[in-house]
Amino acid sequence: MKKSTIDNAETAMDEQEKNGLAPDQPDSLEERGSSIPNSQEEENRLASEFVRQIVSLIEEGDNQAVYDMVAPLHPADIAELFAQAPVEIRRPLAAAITDLMSGEVISEMNEWVREDLLKSLTGQEVANIIAQLDLDDAVVIVSELDAQKQQETLQALSSEDRAAIERALSFPLESAGRMMQRNLVAVHENMSVGDVIHYLRQNDDLTTDFWEVFVVDPSHRPIGTCKLSKLLRMPRHALIQDIMQPEQTLIPVTMDQEEVALRFQKYGLISAAVVDESGRLVGMITVDDIIHIIRDEADEDILKLSGAGDGDINEPVLDSYKSRVRWLITNLGTALVASTIIGFFEGTIARMVELATLMPIVAGVGGNAGSQTMAVTVRALATNQLTASNCVRSITRELRIALLNGLTVACVLGAGTWLVFHNVLLTEVIALAIMSNIIIGGLAGVLVPLTFDRAGSDPAVASSIFVTMTTDAMGFLTFLGLATVSGLTGA
Amino acid sequence: MKKSTIDNAETAMDEQEKNGLAPDQPDSLEERGSSIPNSQEEENRLASEFVRQIVSLIEEGDNQAVYDMVAPLHPADIAELFAQAPVEIRRPLAAAITDLMSGEVISEMNEWVREDLLKSLTGQEVANIIAQLDLDDAVVIVSELDAQKQQETLQALSSEDRAAIERALSFPLESAGRMMQRNLVAVHENMSVGDVIHYLRQNDDLTTDFWEVFVVDPSHRPIGTCKLSKLLRMPRHALIQDIMQPEQTLIPVTMDQEEVALRFQKYGLISAAVVDESGRLVGMITVDDIIHIIRDEADEDILKLSGAGDGDINEPVLDSYKSRVRWLITNLGTALVASTIIGFFEGTIARMVELATLMPIVAGVGGNAGSQTMAVTVRALATNQLTASNCVRSITRELRIALLNGLTVACVLGAGTWLVFHNVLLTEVIALAIMSNIIIGGLAGVLVPLTFDRAGSDPAVASSIFVTMTTDAMGFLTFLGLATVSGLTGA
Repeated sequence: MKKSTIDNAETAMDEQEKNGLAPDQPDSLEERGSSIPNSQEEENRLASEFVRQIVSLIEEGDNQAVYDMVAPLHPADIAELFAQAPVEIRRPLAAAITDLMSGEVISEMNEWVREDLLKSLTGQEVANIIAQLDLDDAVVIVSELDAQKQQETLQALSSEDRAAIERALSFPLESAGRMMQRNLVAVHENMSVGDVIHYLRQNDDLTTDFWEVFVVDPSHRPIGTCKLSKLLRMPRHALIQDIMQPEQTLIPVTMDQEEVALRFQKYGLISAAVVDESGRLVGMITVDDIIHIIRDEADEDILKLSGAGDGDINEPVLDSYKSRVRWLITNLGTALVASTIIGFFEGTIARMVELATLMPIVAGVGGNAGSQTMAVTVRALATNQLTASNCVRSITRELRIALLNGLTVACVLGAGTWLVFHNVLLTEVIALAIMSNIIIGGLAGVLVPLTFDRAGSDPAVASSIFVTMTTDAMGFLTFLGLATVSGLTGA
Repeated sequence: MKKSTIDNAETAMDEQEKNGLAPDQPDSLEERGSSIPNSQEEENRLASEFVRQIVSLIEEGDNQAVYDMVAPLHPADIAELFAQAPVEIRRPLAAAITDLMSGEVISEMNEWVREDLLKSLTGQEVANIIAQLDLDDAVVIVSELDAQKQQETLQALSSEDRAAIERALSFPLESAGRMMQRNLVAVHENMSVGDVIHYLRQNDDLTTDFWEVFVVDPSHRPIGTCKLSKLLRMPRHALIQDIMQPEQTLIPVTMDQEEVALRFQKYGLISAAVVDESGRLVGMITVDDIIHIIRDEADEDILKLSGAGDGDINEPVLDSYKSRVRWLITNLGTALVASTIIGFFEGTIARMVELATLMPIVAGVGGNAGSQTMAVTVRALATNQLTASNCVRSITRELRIALLNGLTVACVLGAGTWLVFHNVLLTEVIALAIMSNIIIGGLAGVLVPLTFDRAGSDPAVASSIFVTMTTDAMGFLTFLGLATVSGLTGA
């Protein structure tokens, strides 16, 4: 390995003993290492028994008992408690534990749960919560408020906080400017390690959530970074310019959050400097904000592919209905295309009604082959793995897989058809039809998302409608068409 | 906001000027802030023109030119270059830039690309690469090797490295024990800030990738943590026990990586201590390893839902074929269920062949409604949002959405059917059928994944087969069944 894998902790302990600081062993410490409270099940969830108890205590009006149970929880667990509790319990719960409702609890909360809770508060009350938050969390919450509450809240904030939030809101939705912290540590390259430590010790109001310091030139442009671990390692007299890492990944303030997340992933960043158009350092993004985005963006792709909109289980029923029904109606439209094609062959079906029994198999399996390819393609596009350099190669690859899949499925389905119907021509027709539909599905699964991506649209949104329409329509067309022209139905 | 949002960088600069360290302004520094090399397009991708140049230089055998172009790249970009380059170019490319093939390049590489490259190396050569890596990355690579190459590689390693890797490999696949670093900084609570800084400065072989120090008791159990930013802020004489944060999230060494990732997300962790069965500190997991897991786990769900297996665009064709064809054959089996149901109604269809034209609409739209609900449910389960506490509520919620969707789509489809066929009974039959199938889809979409989850299986793997089978079968059954019993076809 790069460095010794000996457990360095032991070294630290040994050294300390050498220094004569004999360790003492208070028994009571034994328990302190364990931090998973009883309120939790093993898998990071609040125990449902715990939630039930809270709910029944709220119903009994025993707010003090509720407070005592909730007080030891981590803010993230309190936030989760609200999501787990039934809707009608949430406001009384918030009232019972008012002074535990810290900014952290609010910002960790599921957005729909939070939106509902904040509706019951005045602009002044929301402003009091906002005032405890980091800028990026504050911006998220303010942007979720309706226009009037947003105005009230902004008015109730200090002019400094208001200006910071309004500036952040002026950046595009989901851009780096909305996610960044303005509270960061920037130093000059001529400072020594000792100067920096002195500066950090003297300034109590600096953030504690930073993992590297940014080195800037006199016009405030980033010229390097220095990890805190490095700062701690170097002698006090060392100059920052000699120990800083001069290359760094800069984030333009208008960059989309998905691109920011990809950059963090690719370069393994812990934090990164955000710069404005003229290259000046205006903020910092840290990895903890990125984690939520990576999950959200991947979730978005799953949900978009299935047309489920925002798809959160806490979303109000009417919102879910609106986004889903739009998709179902669109789907109805594309189903009509397939239906129309079947309509052309009503005569053929009337002569051999078994075709109606078999045709959904051809369409369905082709659709599945298309969905497989599409899922792979959409994710490869989203993670920048599929680019102009390897796009032809990817299409060829999918075609080869589709050929193999098509041959295999055609053999299986053909054998089955022959065993049931003892009709050679029908066997040939269905085998040929399913093979070509699997190939069509494979091609559509890669070409449709690629085309949307090239055209600048999100391939996750509309691809599956087009792919399914293609495999349905072509499945019915090839199967019923081949049945007609082959003379299978004797027409 | 929690702390002043004034840009603290300015404060640092001002203070420095007060200290008399006048900033100088070398012009050449202006360029140093910009770190996006020409080799990149705006969106974190290698420019395809750059890749093309490399490929043609390799083909011409101009290795020196290739080396000069690749040398300035970040290791993550070199790794990406291999994925973008055609397969036959990859080994000559590796040969042309041998001494740029650092451990970091190898560990950043797409696993399929890496596997192919490592095949051409001897165990000794792989061992030389492994020796440069952090333990967690080394473990990943060793576990990917085939049995024989794995043995050769382990033999060629130093006994210390071999022991560390073998110990990690003894933990279950995808567990915390496989992901953890053993190289961490642990200190005793009686040490002062000055002691810790002294210890860090004296020990050159410590890792630089750490963001907090772990505080342990004499039997090496974690009792607290201290962020480096806090360490830098506190006076030298402060004792660690007074400034450490006593609560912390401990990761059991056998915990599944998905649970580890959820814990990092929920509690916003940068690093966490890994403990063995007896609660002793045995390793550390850092957030940069978690980011990959979060993305991979979400990607896995998308790909599993569509039956696309591992689904990477770099996976060998035969591997993709094997995982996908298994799914298609399974799908063929479930399609037979639907087909059999249609078979029962051949008489009905023969009497009114339009039914064959309309029936795929009922099945398809119901299937879509099921997929929407399923995607929401699978993600809510994966992110621990859907638990015993809110499961009944979620089912009710989906039922209400399904009712609204069903009513709306039934009206639209009914109106369309009436306009085309002017047949009141047919209109009633199709409207009733699609409404009930959308409700069935909505229920199946939440109940199927919930059942798999309760039974301890991964709901993403098999849910979509069962949901589609249900909506197909029930769609045909309700539509053709209603058509038969209503007397629509005059039977």
